[in-house]
Amino acid sequence: MTTFDPLRITLDRSNALPLYQQIKQGIVAAIERGELPPSTRLPATRVLARQLGVNRVTVVTAYAELAAEGYIDSHVGRGSFVLDRAMGGDEAVNPPSLRRPSDWTAHNFNREMMRLARRPDILSFAPGMPATDLLPDDDYRLALNTVLRRDGPAVLQYGLVEGYPPLHAAIVKELAEFGILAEPEQLLVTSGTEQGLALILRTLLRPGDAILIEQPTYMHVLDLLAGSGIQAYPVACDEQGVRPELLSDLILRHRPKLLYLTPTYQNPTGACMPLTRRRQLLDLTTEHDLLVLEDDVYRHLWLDRPSPPPLRALAPSDNVIYTSGYSKCLLPGARIGYLLPPARLLPVLAASHQTLDITATELHQRALAVILGQERFSAHLVRLREAHRRRRQAMLDALARYMPSETHWTHPRGGLYLWVQLPTTGPSATTLYVHALELGIAFAPGHLFFMPSSGETPVHANHYLRLNFVLHSPRDTADGIRRLARAWERAAGMG
Amino acid sequence: MTTFDPLRITLDRSNALPLYQQIKQGIVAAIERGELPPSTRLPATRVLARQLGVNRVTVVTAYAELAAEGYIDSHVGRGSFVLDRAMGGDEAVNPPSLRRPSDWTAHNFNREMMRLARRPDILSFAPGMPATDLLPDDDYRLALNTVLRRDGPAVLQYGLVEGYPPLHAAIVKELAEFGILAEPEQLLVTSGTEQGLALILRTLLRPGDAILIEQPTYMHVLDLLAGSGIQAYPVACDEQGVRPELLSDLILRHRPKLLYLTPTYQNPTGACMPLTRRRQLLDLTTEHDLLVLEDDVYRHLWLDRPSPPPLRALAPSDNVIYTSGYSKCLLPGARIGYLLPPARLLPVLAASHQTLDITATELHQRALAVILGQERFSAHLVRLREAHRRRRQAMLDALARYMPSETHWTHPRGGLYLWVQLPTTGPSATTLYVHALELGIAFAPGHLFFMPSSGETPVHANHYLRLNFVLHSPRDTADGIRRLARAWERAAGMG
Repeated sequence: MTTFDPLRITLDRSNALPLYQQIKQGIVAAIERGELPPSTRLPATRVLARQLGVNRVTVVTAYAELAAEGYIDSHVGRGSFVLDRAMGGDEAVNPPSLRRPSDWTAHNFNREMMRLARRPDILSFAPGMPATDLLPDDDYRLALNTVLRRDGPAVLQYGLVEGYPPLHAAIVKELAEFGILAEPEQLLVTSGTEQGLALILRTLLRPGDAILIEQPTYMHVLDLLAGSGIQAYPVACDEQGVRPELLSDLILRHRPKLLYLTPTYQNPTGACMPLTRRRQLLDLTTEHDLLVLEDDVYRHLWLDRPSPPPLRALAPSDNVIYTSGYSKCLLPGARIGYLLPPARLLPVLAASHQTLDITATELHQRALAVILGQERFSAHLVRLREAHRRRRQAMLDALARYMPSETHWTHPRGGLYLWVQLPTTGPSATTLYVHALELGIAFAPGHLFFMPSSGETPVHANHYLRLNFVLHSPRDTADGIRRLARAWERAAGMG
Repeated sequence: MTTFDPLRITLDRSNALPLYQQIKQGIVAAIERGELPPSTRLPATRVLARQLGVNRVTVVTAYAELAAEGYIDSHVGRGSFVLDRAMGGDEAVNPPSLRRPSDWTAHNFNREMMRLARRPDILSFAPGMPATDLLPDDDYRLALNTVLRRDGPAVLQYGLVEGYPPLHAAIVKELAEFGILAEPEQLLVTSGTEQGLALILRTLLRPGDAILIEQPTYMHVLDLLAGSGIQAYPVACDEQGVRPELLSDLILRHRPKLLYLTPTYQNPTGACMPLTRRRQLLDLTTEHDLLVLEDDVYRHLWLDRPSPPPLRALAPSDNVIYTSGYSKCLLPGARIGYLLPPARLLPVLAASHQTLDITATELHQRALAVILGQERFSAHLVRLREAHRRRRQAMLDALARYMPSETHWTHPRGGLYLWVQLPTTGPSATTLYVHALELGIAFAPGHLFFMPSSGETPVHANHYLRLNFVLHSPRDTADGIRRLARAWERAAGMG
């Protein structure tokens, strides 16, 4: 077995480069010179630290970076081994956290998406975020300064755990437009809609409890459920969302505590549930006394006409928890969402919020309360929809023009996503992903949205992809789809 | 048994007052007229809703408010009963959530503190927050506008889960001043320091695992631990913090996974651990290979001279997780904290952060990165310390002048808190609390910081109180302590 010669690493303490970087570079150089072939075991961090005369944390940090970049594989208790770089290929093609099939988790992929979204050489359709160029930063700056001038240092102070009361009032006014009648005191402002879901799961379900989720579903929910001990059972969906005829059986079999769904412009499929199905679903959940968690975060983003009312507005009983926020239409980075739970659940959810992170950020809540009441917010939504319609059209046209036959896709009526099924006889979405990155294109492979190892996973889960159609100009969108189609040809051995 | 006559509630749909408020007022009036004596069972919400011709949620909301204000006691499955108001007394004296002894939980008390802090008729020494009048809102407005002008709409977008890289760099520079050498990539920005603690507990401990905590300790940690299944064992503290001679035995007996402590200006005692004890403690935790979670959120707030270096700067091994933030010196409401964990723990903590709430707010991170590097931040800290010293002196002088003999208190060298022990032969802190509120004064009763039902709770836990000495001007502080002393005399039957 090859041994590792620490003497080949020269440390220069007068160098501006941190010591851990110098160690890392020394090891990378040794790997690239072939002195450390795949499977070579690196010395234990304590040993190397002693040999090099550095603090152990310096070596630990160097190893962590090497692992993150795919040079080595580290396991506590087993040691660190040089990986086969040929397996991984070029850095740009196969990003570090997605080198092995087991690395394709929602969490890793999300980090990857956020990183790729910042790279100027990649045109990404992957992330679940609104387009940066369409965010109303001027409007928001005005709202922030209004609040800072008006409220003085109080805007920097801790707020109430339930949220800023005038923001409650502004949200209630908006909810009334959707047909939801609520009192301001019924709302809980959360640190983003995502946190609302975490609070619900943490507070209302215990390990061993069952939950029904859409299949496919929001990938973060799969992540939240993964470590929780909660049993998730997927409900198959069609182009109108959850199929109600499957529900009764699942309810009777698994006695779930909760049904989580996004009836309006679902993530990842973009499906919007028609009114009749909404009523049908509510009849069933009311009959079985099943609590529904309705995620309505895409509501503002209708394109051709407003979507049907939320379940919460139609529900005959007090069995819907409604959650939404402003991360997809206005302020992704402000981390402001809200929950409208049945009154009996509010105190325990508020307690959980306070325990986890005290409150949502006060300044953003105050600025949001200002902007929601303004004409400029409606004007922003009008502009946003107009831009989204143009970008959707560009993507639909380009898909029709460039993608191979037997490719299918949805025609989204709102939200951010277009859901594509590749020809099932051709390459899978993960194979396409690698080739697409080579051509500077990224997307979200569909299998990330299916619950792993569930009997309900469709045979062709690996042939779906999610494209966010709002992120780029019509021109870049068209060019991106053209390159995606070329990547498919390469992956299929036709390039 | 008295029955409830719904016809006495007159609903006026043309009234601007929401229906649930009208229902609530009708019931309060009936209680106050004596028509609904204590223990009367109110009709089920469905029944009353039908009788009044309103949606059930309207009645549920009315009952929830009545319960929150202490008029009724509601339990799912048992019904709602009128409470004995004589037990509770006046609203102002005995606030709603603290009506019964079992309501004195950290969560309820925190909500109470936040509400009282907003009441102009109450001078409160209770909340664990910095003084609003000392927060540098002008400086922060400049930093926000710098960032908004410089970065455009990107400031509204989602950020990286690890945090904004230039903020990492600014924090690392500050950490170096405290003797901690770290690389920017080793940091995880959290949604407040509180969230960092939640991430650590969620990620590194499982139900059944043991943790050692200070006694008394930060009350939020008791809340976090309460529902977790984690076994907490308190370590008694003296005026220099955790007593190291007790540690070995506790470690051997309980095999804890973690020791959580705040060595610098502890909450609630204000204790600061001397350098020799810090080293002694680290020798022990290193010897036993025990992971330490060091909460250093009060570090900036030294008064006479800087405190000894953090444990993280002194630790011979890689076994300290360091956490801090800016909630106590600059930006409570921005919810920005950070973790500096051993490198091996960073990926799993980042994944947990992303799962819970994606990232901390991007705009605040960018503004903080600007302000931390500026002279105006150091200038703010200098002004803050100067004001804190004056307020501390005012409180110390007033305690000496007004409080009864056999009252003892600490002389804090930093942080926010002064820890008082009342004469143990006199009224307890909870009794004093009720009388103090009558005179418009609030404080944090000491028993909230002790682990409930632990064998280690000192006999006199009920005679401690925590006073935040920085919240009010020297004049108001002195006047508040004078009134507190008068409340003590009343409680002791001498008023």
